[in-house]
Amino acid sequence: MFKNILVPFDGSVGAEKALRKAAQLAKLCEGAQITILTVYRHHSMLEASFSMVRAADPGNMDDNMRDYAREVAEHGKKLLTELGITNLRAFARVGQPARTIVAFSRQHEHDLIVMGSRGMGSVESYLLGSVSHKVTGLAPMPVMVV
Amino acid sequence: MFKNILVPFDGSVGAEKALRKAAQLAKLCEGAQITILTVYRHHSMLEASFSMVRAADPGNMDDNMRDYAREVAEHGKKLLTELGITNLRAFARVGQPARTIVAFSRQHEHDLIVMGSRGMGSVESYLLGSVSHKVTGLAPMPVMVV
Repeated sequence: MFKNILVPFDGSVGAEKALRKAAQLAKLCEGAQITILTVYRHHSMLEASFSMVRAADPGNMDDNMRDYAREVAEHGKKLLTELGITNLRAFARVGQPARTIVAFSRQHEHDLIVMGSRGMGSVESYLLGSVSHKVTGLAPMPVMVV
Repeated sequence: MFKNILVPFDGSVGAEKALRKAAQLAKLCEGAQITILTVYRHHSMLEASFSMVRAADPGNMDDNMRDYAREVAEHGKKLLTELGITNLRAFARVGQPARTIVAFSRQHEHDLIVMGSRGMGSVESYLLGSVSHKVTGLAPMPVMVV
């Protein structure tokens, strides 16, 4: 039924729950591939100016955030492997979470997105709606919110 | 994987799409039951006062709406039967759509809700968010928005 499942993964409890549900679905749809996508935000100088004074040079924040996103994606990959999933990939991408997820899903022609209802949020999510809400509204394929 | 699937059904194109997806899933999860739920709103006198002047007595509006909801639910049941689903039920309930769907799903312990992203709306949905958005936020079980 589903052949190409996308799981946006930020390492939160909700995202892990979504990953487990996606694994169950992939097993049910024999041969389905799971793609993990961890989205990180571009580090803005505006946000930096609001931050606390640092004792040490933080280095290149974008590089740090990309490395962290890759670690999170790898963690998701490890979890899926432990659940017996072998047909899987993991990516890290920079951008606005919902838009990046939807653009990625269109580009790779996923036929299902499975994601947590919480997590991937910030103060912004309270003001503009959650990431899962935005993805549900924007994605052309079915979205399962776990 | 899923045993007890709920499909909120208002007869819209999106709801029919959700019904077809639910049928696929039910076949994949052999023996899963599909429950169709059509929610209708209590006819308020306030809304009636905004309506156009009628030439004839509209009768008991609540009864009319319940009968129409039952017809819609039966239509959904017929569609599922044509898709080869035999383990199914259909209900009509009065109330606020999202809250009624979530209360029903809790009461009947559904393990998945499949619903369309459009439909079941009104002007209110533009102001307060769509029914699927509200259900996704309120339901304790996974919600697939088609």
